[in-house]
Amino acid sequence: MNKNFILKGNFVYCNEKKELVICENSYGICVDGVSGGIYKEIPEKFQNLEIIDYGNRLILPGLVDLHVHGPQYGFRGVGFDCELIEWLNTHTFPVESQFGNEDYAKKAYKIFADDLKNSATTRAVIFGTIHENSTRILMELLEETGLKTYVGKVNMDRNAPEYYMEDSTEKSVQDTIRFIEEAQKNFKNTKPIITPRFIPTCTDELMKKLAELKRKYHLPMQSHLSENRGEIEWVKELCPWAECYGDAYDECGILEGKYSSIMAHCVSSTDEEVELLKEREVFVAHCPKSNLNLMSGIAPIRKYMEKEIPIGLGSDVAGGETLSIFEEMAKAIQVSKMYWRYVDEQCRPLTVPEALFLATRGGGAFFGKVGSFEEGFEFDAIVIDDSQIKTQLDLTLTERLERIVYSSGQCKLIAKTVGGKKIFAD
Amino acid sequence: MNKNFILKGNFVYCNEKKELVICENSYGICVDGVSGGIYKEIPEKFQNLEIIDYGNRLILPGLVDLHVHGPQYGFRGVGFDCELIEWLNTHTFPVESQFGNEDYAKKAYKIFADDLKNSATTRAVIFGTIHENSTRILMELLEETGLKTYVGKVNMDRNAPEYYMEDSTEKSVQDTIRFIEEAQKNFKNTKPIITPRFIPTCTDELMKKLAELKRKYHLPMQSHLSENRGEIEWVKELCPWAECYGDAYDECGILEGKYSSIMAHCVSSTDEEVELLKEREVFVAHCPKSNLNLMSGIAPIRKYMEKEIPIGLGSDVAGGETLSIFEEMAKAIQVSKMYWRYVDEQCRPLTVPEALFLATRGGGAFFGKVGSFEEGFEFDAIVIDDSQIKTQLDLTLTERLERIVYSSGQCKLIAKTVGGKKIFAD
Repeated sequence: MNKNFILKGNFVYCNEKKELVICENSYGICVDGVSGGIYKEIPEKFQNLEIIDYGNRLILPGLVDLHVHGPQYGFRGVGFDCELIEWLNTHTFPVESQFGNEDYAKKAYKIFADDLKNSATTRAVIFGTIHENSTRILMELLEETGLKTYVGKVNMDRNAPEYYMEDSTEKSVQDTIRFIEEAQKNFKNTKPIITPRFIPTCTDELMKKLAELKRKYHLPMQSHLSENRGEIEWVKELCPWAECYGDAYDECGILEGKYSSIMAHCVSSTDEEVELLKEREVFVAHCPKSNLNLMSGIAPIRKYMEKEIPIGLGSDVAGGETLSIFEEMAKAIQVSKMYWRYVDEQCRPLTVPEALFLATRGGGAFFGKVGSFEEGFEFDAIVIDDSQIKTQLDLTLTERLERIVYSSGQCKLIAKTVGGKKIFAD
Repeated sequence: MNKNFILKGNFVYCNEKKELVICENSYGICVDGVSGGIYKEIPEKFQNLEIIDYGNRLILPGLVDLHVHGPQYGFRGVGFDCELIEWLNTHTFPVESQFGNEDYAKKAYKIFADDLKNSATTRAVIFGTIHENSTRILMELLEETGLKTYVGKVNMDRNAPEYYMEDSTEKSVQDTIRFIEEAQKNFKNTKPIITPRFIPTCTDELMKKLAELKRKYHLPMQSHLSENRGEIEWVKELCPWAECYGDAYDECGILEGKYSSIMAHCVSSTDEEVELLKEREVFVAHCPKSNLNLMSGIAPIRKYMEKEIPIGLGSDVAGGETLSIFEEMAKAIQVSKMYWRYVDEQCRPLTVPEALFLATRGGGAFFGKVGSFEEGFEFDAIVIDDSQIKTQLDLTLTERLERIVYSSGQCKLIAKTVGGKKIFAD
């Protein structure tokens, strides 16, 4: 359904060198959900395909959100008056604990899934709660959207409030096994992912067992790393044997398997930790909105890029205030300018093409060949009408892209396709 | 017209201690364009007034933009790849110079005036270009909106490209006199303001003559101060006799008259300059969006607040990417967190009530009794529908305000009043 067609419009995407590729007034071919390339004129063999003409609008690869907490969506934009650990205890855990009630979860997750569907995000990697049943409800709702996602049931067996902690390590593991098997059986676009919350709330025993499940079921994993200074000190106390925070994960075996792990934040990673990220090819989910709001700091993304560590962007709702990955792109550039100004003048600020790369190919690589219109990439596309941003000037497509990144709230998203499947269209 | 009425809804504003005042489900009285106070029940003497019921919506004081460049609106969100001086030469001056053509100016300023009218801003202090006629066109368009504004014809008689510089100091002064006299004669809500661009483009002779005009016509003035490090070095070269950048203005007499000057930015002011700002009671226009985009840095607003220097917010379009003062509030908080984290841990981050204060009473003070619903303040009100930000939670009005600040793009502005005059209403 809808998997063979041609879009016409102004295509803008990144090549693997993080440069913009601009195809004005061109035809983008989708065959069996995969890009057949972008052309100025339709090649002979595609001439029977239906053409959907988007005129002067911009067509970009769908955006990828590598880190977002579904259950926190209800309090997005509220409570940015404290740092991470206090924020978890006062704002986050009280709300997440409510998801033990399935009716509550249905109501809350419906809002999240609807808004994610209507956003510019085509793919996302999502935290649920510790509750197996509610996380399955989230997956059911996401499956209906047509988006492609990974969803994790969160594991927490220590250092959490009594009202929001799993009863035992064993129960945490058993619930996770059931969650994985059910998910693998029931969903096509919504896949399970191993999700220890972070070192402070997971015993070494739990982490090792999750590493076993990761191997056994061939799953990826997601967690948090070196977000906040207080958190890092706490990990040192909890794992005095670890050489760095990242090593506390690695010693449990959970970072094994290249390109199979996502670590959110990495704001204050030591050189040693950065080497570990590189060696294990861990994806860094860069979440500048959240890192501003919770006062965590600025991740040195330029350094990570130079080391060719895989990086994508994460909205990190509700540390981040909205689901918008365009806003995350703008913030990634803006905070990189402050890092350059105040921390390290060797770290050149990010550019718009680089931010687009992170938001598309960067995070997209976690899903395979995703985030570009080059031939062979899955056909994820968003069509953007920027005509409401009025100007007397004639802008180039590069300028219009920049303006969309900085003023996305004033643009209208008029169509979205994931792997060639129409999610919505005007 | 429309100057006597009652609004019903949830009023949120700041008292002079920068604390939130929350009046749930209350009546706000407007008599002759001035607030008669907020009440839970309508006092006897106001019972004949028309009531406009906004139900569960939030009603805030109108927002004040202390620093914005009208002619730069066309390239907002474009060209944030360089610092101030290069940006002026490559992006700004080429566009501003076009405003010598009145037809061009009409077209461009119509877009600016329409969008400002439809924004949450009720009052603004605006830069035009060096062109007297075009700046008058801007004032005509603004007068039609019903907003209350100050508008300045820009003065530049040195160090600018030949295609965008005034022919002589004398012509700059004569054009300014004509501009002032015409404006004072023709407009009610749109007032002239003395506007030397900044020290680098104004000779001492020009600055001294503008100071005379300021005194003679009882006008305020606006300019730029200590925005960018390269700019500051340049001012040192140009005015070796000045004790600091601010002193280069002050020695010309243009900062005389307390509360009569606005200086945009003050990112890198020395202690001496801060003392001068305090002594002259100069308004600081804090423009965090612009200061991020042009890599200028972070103004130490907490320090200025502690010294009780008057401060408001400025969108600084097109250094800032949008006209939104809500976005400026969010950014002011976010950058203050980075200043605290990376520059000075003594500078506590700004809070939401403090940001609201800056955006309303802070900048409003430049216009008189503006920025509050306390009795005697001019009745500037904006009515905000936040129902599109869906949640399963019951939020307090304080939480809803915070969410509006961080997600203003998702809210709908449904009515706006300036000095009791209806600008628009659903």
